[in-house]
Amino acid sequence: MILPGRAHLGHILHYVGKPLIWLLAWDIAVTAFWYLVDPVWLEFPALPVTLLGSAVAVYLSFRNTTAYARWWEARTLWGAMVNTSRTLARDALTLLSDRDAATAIIHRHIAYVHALRLHLRRQAPWDELAGRLSADEVERLRSVANVPNAIHTRTAATVSAARPDPILLATFARTMSDISNAQGGMERIKNTPLPQQYSAYPAIFTHGFCLLLPLGLVETLGLYTPLGSTVAGFLFLALLQIGNDMQNPFENREDDVPLTTLTRGIEIDLRDTLGETHGLQPVQPVDGILW
Amino acid sequence: MILPGRAHLGHILHYVGKPLIWLLAWDIAVTAFWYLVDPVWLEFPALPVTLLGSAVAVYLSFRNTTAYARWWEARTLWGAMVNTSRTLARDALTLLSDRDAATAIIHRHIAYVHALRLHLRRQAPWDELAGRLSADEVERLRSVANVPNAIHTRTAATVSAARPDPILLATFARTMSDISNAQGGMERIKNTPLPQQYSAYPAIFTHGFCLLLPLGLVETLGLYTPLGSTVAGFLFLALLQIGNDMQNPFENREDDVPLTTLTRGIEIDLRDTLGETHGLQPVQPVDGILW
Amino acid sequence: MILPGRAHLGHILHYVGKPLIWLLAWDIAVTAFWYLVDPVWLEFPALPVTLLGSAVAVYLSFRNTTAYARWWEARTLWGAMVNTSRTLARDALTLLSDRDAATAIIHRHIAYVHALRLHLRRQAPWDELAGRLSADEVERLRSVANVPNAIHTRTAATVSAARPDPILLATFARTMSDISNAQGGMERIKNTPLPQQYSAYPAIFTHGFCLLLPLGLVETLGLYTPLGSTVAGFLFLALLQIGNDMQNPFENREDDVPLTTLTRGIEIDLRDTLGETHGLQPVQPVDGILW
Amino acid sequence: MILPGRAHLGHILHYVGKPLIWLLAWDIAVTAFWYLVDPVWLEFPALPVTLLGSAVAVYLSFRNTTAYARWWEARTLWGAMVNTSRTLARDALTLLSDRDAATAIIHRHIAYVHALRLHLRRQAPWDELAGRLSADEVERLRSVANVPNAIHTRTAATVSAARPDPILLATFARTMSDISNAQGGMERIKNTPLPQQYSAYPAIFTHGFCLLLPLGLVETLGLYTPLGSTVAGFLFLALLQIGNDMQNPFENREDDVPLTTLTRGIEIDLRDTLGETHGLQPVQPVDGILW
Amino acid sequence: MILPGRAHLGHILHYVGKPLIWLLAWDIAVTAFWYLVDPVWLEFPALPVTLLGSAVAVYLSFRNTTAYARWWEARTLWGAMVNTSRTLARDALTLLSDRDAATAIIHRHIAYVHALRLHLRRQAPWDELAGRLSADEVERLRSVANVPNAIHTRTAATVSAARPDPILLATFARTMSDISNAQGGMERIKNTPLPQQYSAYPAIFTHGFCLLLPLGLVETLGLYTPLGSTVAGFLFLALLQIGNDMQNPFENREDDVPLTTLTRGIEIDLRDTLGETHGLQPVQPVDGILW
Repeated sequence: MILPGRAHLGHILHYVGKPLIWLLAWDIAVTAFWYLVDPVWLEFPALPVTLLGSAVAVYLSFRNTTAYARWWEARTLWGAMVNTSRTLARDALTLLSDRDAATAIIHRHIAYVHALRLHLRRQAPWDELAGRLSADEVERLRSVANVPNAIHTRTAATVSAARPDPILLATFARTMSDISNAQGGMERIKNTPLPQQYSAYPAIFTHGFCLLLPLGLVETLGLYTPLGSTVAGFLFLALLQIGNDMQNPFENREDDVPLTTLTRGIEIDLRDTLGETHGLQPVQPVDGILW
Repeated sequence: MILPGRAHLGHILHYVGKPLIWLLAWDIAVTAFWYLVDPVWLEFPALPVTLLGSAVAVYLSFRNTTAYARWWEARTLWGAMVNTSRTLARDALTLLSDRDAATAIIHRHIAYVHALRLHLRRQAPWDELAGRLSADEVERLRSVANVPNAIHTRTAATVSAARPDPILLATFARTMSDISNAQGGMERIKNTPLPQQYSAYPAIFTHGFCLLLPLGLVETLGLYTPLGSTVAGFLFLALLQIGNDMQNPFENREDDVPLTTLTRGIEIDLRDTLGETHGLQPVQPVDGILW
Repeated sequence: MILPGRAHLGHILHYVGKPLIWLLAWDIAVTAFWYLVDPVWLEFPALPVTLLGSAVAVYLSFRNTTAYARWWEARTLWGAMVNTSRTLARDALTLLSDRDAATAIIHRHIAYVHALRLHLRRQAPWDELAGRLSADEVERLRSVANVPNAIHTRTAATVSAARPDPILLATFARTMSDISNAQGGMERIKNTPLPQQYSAYPAIFTHGFCLLLPLGLVETLGLYTPLGSTVAGFLFLALLQIGNDMQNPFENREDDVPLTTLTRGIEIDLRDTLGETHGLQPVQPVDGILW
Repeated sequence: MILPGRAHLGHILHYVGKPLIWLLAWDIAVTAFWYLVDPVWLEFPALPVTLLGSAVAVYLSFRNTTAYARWWEARTLWGAMVNTSRTLARDALTLLSDRDAATAIIHRHIAYVHALRLHLRRQAPWDELAGRLSADEVERLRSVANVPNAIHTRTAATVSAARPDPILLATFARTMSDISNAQGGMERIKNTPLPQQYSAYPAIFTHGFCLLLPLGLVETLGLYTPLGSTVAGFLFLALLQIGNDMQNPFENREDDVPLTTLTRGIEIDLRDTLGETHGLQPVQPVDGILW
Repeated sequence: MILPGRAHLGHILHYVGKPLIWLLAWDIAVTAFWYLVDPVWLEFPALPVTLLGSAVAVYLSFRNTTAYARWWEARTLWGAMVNTSRTLARDALTLLSDRDAATAIIHRHIAYVHALRLHLRRQAPWDELAGRLSADEVERLRSVANVPNAIHTRTAATVSAARPDPILLATFARTMSDISNAQGGMERIKNTPLPQQYSAYPAIFTHGFCLLLPLGLVETLGLYTPLGSTVAGFLFLALLQIGNDMQNPFENREDDVPLTTLTRGIEIDLRDTLGETHGLQPVQPVDGILW
């Protein structure tokens, strides 16, 4: 996640820089051609440019709304994970009479959230899990398709083994189900990219629109065509780029939902709740980016 | 579901290809007619084209938003099915003392999700069910209107027969109800197409708009009419087509929510949870499409 | 509910036919007046038409979004009724030890959904209820304001009378509450039409806009005014009409949420669950319309 | 709530009448000035009018969507109150063995919804409560900040005093919590007006836009300026007024959510459920308005 | 929160005053340059201004919708905190037999909401907590990362220590979980600013657009350029500023969700419920602002 204050004009130029330079080159080429060759037969009037601009804006506007909705839902699901993690820890400590079982459940859950982070980012969880789960269990996890879900199921067995009153066991089952729902929601976003029609078309149409733009403007704008056309193209390319950035929030890129920060935060909260002296610090931003 | 990377320009041309060729032919015909016949009485000015374009954009924009919302809700409901399936399996294994009953419940539920997939795609479930349920039950299922619901009801009876503590039975009843809600939501989307007004009108208006487009542009665009008109028509036709693709997510087409992949995934998760050696692999995309 | 395939151009013409003929007549009259009287003083330029068109589009776009949201919420609430009905039947059969009580509860609930359908359509429920409830109860129902709610309350008493374990009674109470929530949501949509400002204004403004349209177009469009103006008016009138159709989904009109189909479906599902041989068939569309 | 059929053109004119007359006067003044003074230096061309119109439309469109969302949420929360009231009554009668306690709870809840209505409309509840609660309790209520919440808390004590099975007590606690959530939602809407930026700015900008409109149109529209400008201004002023009407739904105005009707309906439902002969009739509209 | 009636034109001018003065100066400079230097080579026509205006409006419209959604969600989460606080207090008093424990729980919860307010505004909670919690506990809180969560966990331990029936303990656990969810939602909004792309870009583009505006208008507007350009710029700058104000609702600024008022209100409600004579008054607005 890019923190406020980092995105200045320079950053944006870097951001859409490459297509923008090509666009500028194309705009200058069209204008030069117009003035040097003086093609009386080249009369591409303004109307379709406005019409096309509206249609492209419909695509980009829809795409951006949807991409942001995906990003924010991903963040909200991690927020739900934070909340249910706290609830699980609180319930373990206050509803179970067996303090050791409570500690085990909470430590297992910390391992779970780290495994979930690595699962979503398609990274190997083994180093992270080595110190947190028994070697036996880690070995068994190597044969399952969904590592965090397997950890979670065994945490539920740990809860059952503590033999709480059935009603309290049902309360835990509810919390465990809330956690499954949050995980499943994240996997849904990870495994289901925006349909290609919404993802590839806007790119093609925006680029096509930027190519047509100087043709449509050169007659009226004359020598100012590169300026006008590049500025307008910049806006559309930036809109396109924003959608690209936001649509996939678990890709280990700078626009990710900050999973490392969130899982570290959950670990700190849970170990604080246990009263442990852990010495962990919240993740600090690197170059204005929170991972 | 079409995977990223597959939708290149060629695919899109194939996608709206046929109407596009007709459109291009029409655009050329209008332009030719204009230049050859030189009809002084044909002065269809630009204004209504813009006005019509805005009105058509309102239709298409609404239609696309709604069609995508249907697709995403369908995907989310299947996500809920994934989550509740995991919860059902976890609860069966950790809340019931009878391991055989738990295994039976989980196997029944795997049969249920396959039956639901085939039910939504209006395909016969009998082959799929033959190896998973008793011949007796399959026979009885032939006389009911809603096969997956009948399987689900009997799974609930299996849970009851395991005689858990009433509170845990109530917990299962809640999970069973969540599953019914997910199924019902999918059936709602399947059985209730987008109202015809939102479905048929945009098609008629977009096609009509594309027919009027060259008439409105030819005076100002001249020989560039086929280019300008076809490009603009392309954008509108593509918007129309996207809505068509997304609105019905359970039709066994390439734009479907990937039911085969999802039900296979549920089976793998559940059998992993049981600790079975199943040898099942996730569904692989075929030609960039996940079914 | 109008099924796909029925809404062809002829249907649409029928749909907005009457206002369209008036509109065409008006457009021709304006054009004729312009050419015959040649009023140099009639110079209504194009600008306000575009401006008015945008403002009218804001109204219609908002109205359509809202009208569709009402329709879809109505459908979703009936979907919830389908789901909770199945849950109620499943729980009655698997959680109650008394099979007769379960059968009574399910039969009562079938009577309830039929009564609810007739209640929403403001039709007398007495014929439908005669064969399903005791004469005594039907008599008592004649004195209450809300017949389905009274049936539902007594079903709850039947559940209590079966003396389930308190926790299972609580589970039923939850399901009964979900049913009340669905019914209440439907009544909300039925009793609270779209505020008149959103309902009457768009009609007035759209009609007004269609009247002004030829005045604004005739100078530039000339003899093509009736064509251009009628086509544009058609789009706006159709947008207006769609909103009209969708906003009230329980009016016994062809655009209704298909209550008869849905309640029949619930009855089939529930009697299938009971294992009854009922001989009921799903409702078939009549002339492409599902009631 | 204004009922359908009441809002005819006359009503609308009355609705935005005063600003409209001022607007017409201003439009005529500008046009007269233009023709009489013939100011060659007054050339306010059309472009900014379109640009401003778009920007104002963004404000008004957002404002209307939000205002309607507030109104509909308020109505939905009252719908939730209707539903939970029925559930509370049904549960009291079917889950409690003590019929007197059930009757007391239901009567107390009727007092609660009337108190809540008066609380939201900032009216004194004492007359309404006098006949419904003991003089003692009414006296004590005079010292608390939130009268309905205090009534509700004591209803919960009445439920506890009936000593139901703990699980059924928990079921009641859930329903009481649903009621608190509905009340809290209503208070949120009442106490948190739309932020002033969204409330005051649209008014200022719309009025400013209407003032500039004839200046921008007079050159092209000439003598038709008052007509064109007033019609366009009418649309924008009406959009503005609709947002004003909808944004605060509990102000005892004709656009209110019909609280009197809703609370009367709850009382009828609950007393019907008790089997009382109450002689109450639903609230009838007065001059097409339901209060 | 700014109360109605305060935002008059003067306030708005103050609001976007500084950029507006710069804008006016720039507009006058461009106009003066145009008339004094008479640059025949400066012909920046109107088209790109409209095109750019549309693109900028897409950014601002999206940004404002999202910023308001954040603000309203923050308010709704505090509304949920109000509701669950009342439910916690009601349940403590009516479900627990131990009145002292109930009082302790309610007093602890009052401390919690104050700590949460200060936590969200990044202010030290120690003064507020000193009189409300034991010195011991306050001391321990100094070592945890999340003070309100630690208070909340210990409140849950107080509930457990009162040894209610397990089912009632589960009811409390649910309420405690609702409170955690509300807190977590607030922290999500606090810790996850709007992505920089949506936050920084609109500012840059709006300012850039305002700079280009007079260049695009001066040819047609002439001496009226400063008026037209400043009015249009004003609308866009105000739209930009509104988004800025709303997007971060917990910053101790005048546009904040009124946390002080809300927490005071919760304290009054809860102490009223306890029947305490507290002498607390609702927070009064200061200069039309509610903190």
